[in-house]
Amino acid sequence: MGKHNLQIGSSSIAQKIATYTFDEYLELVRSFHGYASPGVLIGGFMVDLALRNLPRGILFDAICETVQCLPDAVQILTPCTIGNGWLKIMSFGRFALSFYEKYKGTGVRVYLDTAKLNHWDEIQTWFFKLKLKKEQDSELLQEQIRTAGADICSLHKIQVLPQHLKKASLGERTICPICQEVYPASHGPICRSCQGDTPYRKFDKE
Amino acid sequence: MGKHNLQIGSSSIAQKIATYTFDEYLELVRSFHGYASPGVLIGGFMVDLALRNLPRGILFDAICETVQCLPDAVQILTPCTIGNGWLKIMSFGRFALSFYEKYKGTGVRVYLDTAKLNHWDEIQTWFFKLKLKKEQDSELLQEQIRTAGADICSLHKIQVLPQHLKKASLGERTICPICQEVYPASHGPICRSCQGDTPYRKFDKE
Repeated sequence: MGKHNLQIGSSSIAQKIATYTFDEYLELVRSFHGYASPGVLIGGFMVDLALRNLPRGILFDAICETVQCLPDAVQILTPCTIGNGWLKIMSFGRFALSFYEKYKGTGVRVYLDTAKLNHWDEIQTWFFKLKLKKEQDSELLQEQIRTAGADICSLHKIQVLPQHLKKASLGERTICPICQEVYPASHGPICRSCQGDTPYRKFDKE
Repeated sequence: MGKHNLQIGSSSIAQKIATYTFDEYLELVRSFHGYASPGVLIGGFMVDLALRNLPRGILFDAICETVQCLPDAVQILTPCTIGNGWLKIMSFGRFALSFYEKYKGTGVRVYLDTAKLNHWDEIQTWFFKLKLKKEQDSELLQEQIRTAGADICSLHKIQVLPQHLKKASLGERTICPICQEVYPASHGPICRSCQGDTPYRKFDKE
């Protein structure tokens, strides 16, 4: 991943994404995300812009306001992952991310600014889904993303609310009398899966 | 990431995790997750066990039944990430994961089986939080995890319900009259953040 090489606040060089060239980042995206999706590519520039506007050397957490693409840019370029809890996803469906000092909640938010898309017709077409995917010009789209860089994004300061700064603890663990598996006691007398949220057809464990 | 080197269904060699040795996996975990958390280490053996029990060459999706640690094992070892949508997280707080053929939903589920923890006191202490973290013996815990491998897990077949096989589309996009940002029209006349779910104190974009 090369995450250890990340220098937060490194000087801004045209079209660098954190410490990577665009082509290096493209390779990381293909390896982690599976393919060079426009969302993760734009996300790289968004992460870079946010990092350059954070004070150096702070411990920061991240919020992604959509589950689509953007979380992978954060996971590739920063220490924040969904599994270590430093990245949270809120399902607003907005193409935006925030980084903030993990205890005080002060930080920055970056979003794809549609007011800045006028000169980038193929990005506009992709973002507003103006054409079917197979009718979009994916080569032109990638070229426009590479050239536009962070010029299609805006940034503003944020203050995260105190209740979102605490790490949600699952608390005491207990065994579900139905599935016999361990779950957080706070979920009720049986686990959420057995309460009916299961994604599986009834199964026998044999 | 080395994800390209993953050979699904490779022959089972003692304490190998996919194509990695335990020490190689440890290094990947430290790089991606930030530290060698017990959950991601056990998760590696769980992913490996599940992969060895999937038919070769199928396209599979993944479900993690907890947001803690386990999703990172899946993201390190498989093509499934939270941002590409091939990994879904369900907040059951159960230490379990499933891989399944993405169209038919047939697959396997692996869970940490507490009935198999008798000989692994430090894993038991960690899993049931029987001691404060600072009182746990993290070296012994890692040694027990390495030695136990997938012996503390159980596996069974699953059939994912049809409604969970479809990829949720966000549908048509529109501009929120309050924040002026693009969001899924299906969320209502204003975006979810402006509906009151925002994690931020009221901010000016200047």
